[in-house]
Amino acid sequence: MNASTSPATRPTIAPVAPLTDEHLRFSPLGLDEVRITSGFWSDWQRTNREVTAPHSVRWIEEDGAVDAFRRVAKGTPLSAAERPGMWFSDSDVYKTLEGLAWDLGVEPSEEFTRVIGDLAREIAAAQGDDGYLNTFVQEGNGERYAKLGWSHEMYCIGHLIQAAVAHKRTTGRDDVLDIAVAAANRLVGDFGDRKRTETDGHPEIEMALVELYRVTGTREYLTLAQQFLDLRGHGELDTNGNFDSVYYQDATPFREETTTVGHAVRAVYLIAGAVDLYLETGEDALLEAAERQWESMTATKTYVNGAIGSRVEGEAFGDSFELPPDLVYGETCATIGAMMLSWRLLLATGRSRYADSIERGLFNLVAASTSAERNAFFYANPAQRRTPRPAAPVGERPPRAEAPGTRPSWFVCACCPPNILRTVASLGAYVATSNSTGVQVHQYVPTRITAPVSSGTVALEMSTGYPVDGTVRITVRASTEDAWTLSLRSPDWADTVRVAVNGEAVNAAPSPSGYLEVERRWTEGDEVTMTLPMGPRYTVTHPQTDAVRGQVAIERGPLVYCFESPDQADGVDLNRVDLLVDEPIAEDEPADLLGSTAVVLRVPAVLRDEQAWATTGWAPLDAGPGTQDGGTQDGGAHGGAGSRVELVAIPYFLWANRGPSVMRIFTPYRRG
Amino acid sequence: MNASTSPATRPTIAPVAPLTDEHLRFSPLGLDEVRITSGFWSDWQRTNREVTAPHSVRWIEEDGAVDAFRRVAKGTPLSAAERPGMWFSDSDVYKTLEGLAWDLGVEPSEEFTRVIGDLAREIAAAQGDDGYLNTFVQEGNGERYAKLGWSHEMYCIGHLIQAAVAHKRTTGRDDVLDIAVAAANRLVGDFGDRKRTETDGHPEIEMALVELYRVTGTREYLTLAQQFLDLRGHGELDTNGNFDSVYYQDATPFREETTTVGHAVRAVYLIAGAVDLYLETGEDALLEAAERQWESMTATKTYVNGAIGSRVEGEAFGDSFELPPDLVYGETCATIGAMMLSWRLLLATGRSRYADSIERGLFNLVAASTSAERNAFFYANPAQRRTPRPAAPVGERPPRAEAPGTRPSWFVCACCPPNILRTVASLGAYVATSNSTGVQVHQYVPTRITAPVSSGTVALEMSTGYPVDGTVRITVRASTEDAWTLSLRSPDWADTVRVAVNGEAVNAAPSPSGYLEVERRWTEGDEVTMTLPMGPRYTVTHPQTDAVRGQVAIERGPLVYCFESPDQADGVDLNRVDLLVDEPIAEDEPADLLGSTAVVLRVPAVLRDEQAWATTGWAPLDAGPGTQDGGTQDGGAHGGAGSRVELVAIPYFLWANRGPSVMRIFTPYRRG
Repeated sequence: MNASTSPATRPTIAPVAPLTDEHLRFSPLGLDEVRITSGFWSDWQRTNREVTAPHSVRWIEEDGAVDAFRRVAKGTPLSAAERPGMWFSDSDVYKTLEGLAWDLGVEPSEEFTRVIGDLAREIAAAQGDDGYLNTFVQEGNGERYAKLGWSHEMYCIGHLIQAAVAHKRTTGRDDVLDIAVAAANRLVGDFGDRKRTETDGHPEIEMALVELYRVTGTREYLTLAQQFLDLRGHGELDTNGNFDSVYYQDATPFREETTTVGHAVRAVYLIAGAVDLYLETGEDALLEAAERQWESMTATKTYVNGAIGSRVEGEAFGDSFELPPDLVYGETCATIGAMMLSWRLLLATGRSRYADSIERGLFNLVAASTSAERNAFFYANPAQRRTPRPAAPVGERPPRAEAPGTRPSWFVCACCPPNILRTVASLGAYVATSNSTGVQVHQYVPTRITAPVSSGTVALEMSTGYPVDGTVRITVRASTEDAWTLSLRSPDWADTVRVAVNGEAVNAAPSPSGYLEVERRWTEGDEVTMTLPMGPRYTVTHPQTDAVRGQVAIERGPLVYCFESPDQADGVDLNRVDLLVDEPIAEDEPADLLGSTAVVLRVPAVLRDEQAWATTGWAPLDAGPGTQDGGTQDGGAHGGAGSRVELVAIPYFLWANRGPSVMRIFTPYRRG
Repeated sequence: MNASTSPATRPTIAPVAPLTDEHLRFSPLGLDEVRITSGFWSDWQRTNREVTAPHSVRWIEEDGAVDAFRRVAKGTPLSAAERPGMWFSDSDVYKTLEGLAWDLGVEPSEEFTRVIGDLAREIAAAQGDDGYLNTFVQEGNGERYAKLGWSHEMYCIGHLIQAAVAHKRTTGRDDVLDIAVAAANRLVGDFGDRKRTETDGHPEIEMALVELYRVTGTREYLTLAQQFLDLRGHGELDTNGNFDSVYYQDATPFREETTTVGHAVRAVYLIAGAVDLYLETGEDALLEAAERQWESMTATKTYVNGAIGSRVEGEAFGDSFELPPDLVYGETCATIGAMMLSWRLLLATGRSRYADSIERGLFNLVAASTSAERNAFFYANPAQRRTPRPAAPVGERPPRAEAPGTRPSWFVCACCPPNILRTVASLGAYVATSNSTGVQVHQYVPTRITAPVSSGTVALEMSTGYPVDGTVRITVRASTEDAWTLSLRSPDWADTVRVAVNGEAVNAAPSPSGYLEVERRWTEGDEVTMTLPMGPRYTVTHPQTDAVRGQVAIERGPLVYCFESPDQADGVDLNRVDLLVDEPIAEDEPADLLGSTAVVLRVPAVLRDEQAWATTGWAPLDAGPGTQDGGTQDGGAHGGAGSRVELVAIPYFLWANRGPSVMRIFTPYRRG
């Protein structure tokens, strides 16, 4: 089991690079094949590289996560009580390393190469001679595997493996991979062939072992991932009294589960691992269960901003339609995990809905989870703020949980910031895929793309002002003799999409899988123009989503908008407004807003007069203060006293960058 | 400072018995002066005595709370990790003792007397020679007062004092009181005259010290309570990294605070303590601040079922109108604390709104917090259940937090059950008061009342089928020569109340303070009949309560109703119903339901057809599945496809007694 015997026939420089294309509808392209050239994603990758990366490297030093490896290497352990961070802080180091590694696939960096080398040496020095690696346990805090339900030992190794896979794929180097392989071999030795029948309380190892199999060709890793998945769901996980088996996705076997339950990050990581298994083994029951769970999550347990996991208690999925904006948890890592899951399902099924979901999560929740300067982060992501909360203390690490008025620099439980780092560094992988029939474009980003099709390699150049502008221009820079199909995702939010080739409109009804397909013999210089309807639109939710009944969100293209107090006129209380949805929304010209190009919206509304309600929280339906003057408590359908105001809406991802504020996405409305 | 030197001139056998009537609008009556004779409260007191009391006594043994005192007495300590319960489990013992003690004021019991004597001996044996008493610290877990922000040392002593006060008032005995006095003297010695300037992170000691002052006349206790209140609110409490100063009501000085913030139980206990101080000292700023905070809490942070504290995170008050039923926390102890606060404010101000609030909390949230059999309890109280949750494991103690599908027997953090015990045992105190002008009746309960007025003592007999029936009959059994006023609370939910004296209607407009006042020379046999409008009514909430916009609750008299799945016809999904509020609700005849007499309601509704929404959670306002067929997502105002159904509503307090279920209080509705 030597890492240098990698058998990958086409070593794709991307997360998720299956060894076989037998179960792939779409094959991923590497970061070297999709070069992001400008625009929103490019800017984000630049600040990710220049700000988020050094910030993360500094914080894993400051918070003691790297020191834990040094202590183990030196034999100067700290007890659980003395350790400064979480017991699974190793994973923060690994995720940071993974982020730097993916970035090397985008742009070379001596600095990042040096940091990775240094970290790899520190990690290697801590690793046991037998491959075991977990600084918390190695510091003498508990026995190996004794509390796997809660210890995160395999979770940490999973992140080590993902980091190693990224590093191997972008650099070809084995120094991190060798550590990961040794750690994985330890797991194989200890758990393989059901030698032990426990599994980790926090899924992650499943995805990682499949990827390690892809890089090394060592089938035991795939088999072990399968074992861990199969062992779950029988209520046998030792939870050490922390939460119930539902929290751990251990109450129902994976193949029988019908929805997403329990801790949200665990849930989506587990499903993603199952799809990874499907991609290699082709077991239909895994894909079916994964799609079923994803469908339930997306239709009934996802906020319009892409947040999942409404409950702070257990950082967990709630029941279907339990989606109150004012008490949402919405962990950043959960939506990132949902993106990872959706990407795998997209590769497996070729259905555009998975790319839609990635777009919604990325442009809204994940983008909003980071400050405009990209050096501060939300762990839980508010969807409504009635009252400004105190700003995050600068330079301190709050415990996770409730979000303060502004984004903290780091967290005691620092899972989210490096998760953002690695996701943004690898964004290029989400743009396009190819297969024998042609090239599929999933996300609209200025890029240069080269992609293998059956008849050879093609090259495309995409230019667009998306997500501000709805025109996407794709120019063929190189083609093959044979015809092939260019497939363009028709976003779920777009009712009419126009496509023209070399200026001539083509029939562009979406295929059943959601793509606009144009098949022809392409020649260099051919230009495809897609025009998406970018007008602002009002969105309502499922009638069971009680918390936003009688309210609308505003979206424009892929962006969810919000109202934030710093933008409003004096005297406008965002807690007291009803939107006048039958009057037009005015759009400002695109302009810089907090470092991003954005279209500001001006929305007609009424500021409610609530004097009559001053001393009471409830009243009779037909005789209360809300109805004496015409009524507003039933969604505003009846009108009611108030004064006209114009509200300013901005993209949700830009909120909370100007100090503590009032903010809302959903707002009551009136008709007529 | 000998406990037997009690100076109380009129030793009222009730919680809250001020030493002076100078700052009392209404003076409390003792449990010996208000005898509950039959009906809902009487039945509850009986099961409280026969079921809840022995259940609690057994559990404080089983869960090790009493053992902690034994270990300290024997010198066989357990470490923090070894102790079976919470570090403040002493308070569970004290609250249980207090419950038994109040019950002795209702009915003598050799058994309760014996149990109290035994507990008193166990507690006394553990008390330090210097009066210090806290088993956790005495077992060697930390230094005295070293972590007052989190240690609950004074909180526990506060509960000891309340138990001792109850025991002294109902029995005249000093055995518990002597322990409490020694413990209080220890606090005076250590903290008095600002010798130390810390205070306990969990308020409770304030109320308790004022009550101990009332029983003993020792002014140092009153002064120390004042000191603890004054020290709070300057951000100086050492929180040991647990939560922020807002959580502890330590961010804003009490007299400047405008609303209820932070941990809900702490908040209401603190305000109650401040009103206790006002009742003795007359400091207007305290009463003003207390009324202001209560007003904000009641108008903007209280659920229709009387729940307060919407946030599970920190068991805390949310922002104003942050009241989603599907993620409510609503701790039982918080509403009990709000009742304690409201009672003190009622005595201080004579305003009926405080009695209204007690009625709402007691008949709904507190009644619902206990099972019909009174041997199982909710700690957090659901206001909506979309999906049945697993039943509570029988005979086990879950951690607090999320409520399972049925009520657990006990909790690791067992604060709520004995809080219910002591509250129900002392319910007689909440019925009526008197002052020089006459007698005030706040709650409508079959009782025999004797009360001092300026011209002597009067006796009343009240009979009623309330809360099922709205007729209340009060017969004068003894009076005085002089005229006096009988004041009857006009409930806030009652729009028209009729009052007759000896069969003749009298003008019964409520006074500014909310009471229907009838002044006359009463003679034995005079009969007052009050008739309350008991028809079911639809209730809407403030327009800022987003989570229930476009929904109604159903109330009947003081009872909030709910829909629960066991009562509905096959195929009726309570997640898909819209009430037809313009059609009449049918009322069944009163009948036994789960051991209580109740009126079942039959409510016309539509079962929505949501097929078109099967695969999506949101849609465009005017082109989505909800509007293609007429629309239901805007509060049902537009109608929409569906089939007619008749729903069954029951009193909320009876839910979750027939296994795990779906339940809702607020439901969408349609007009016309």
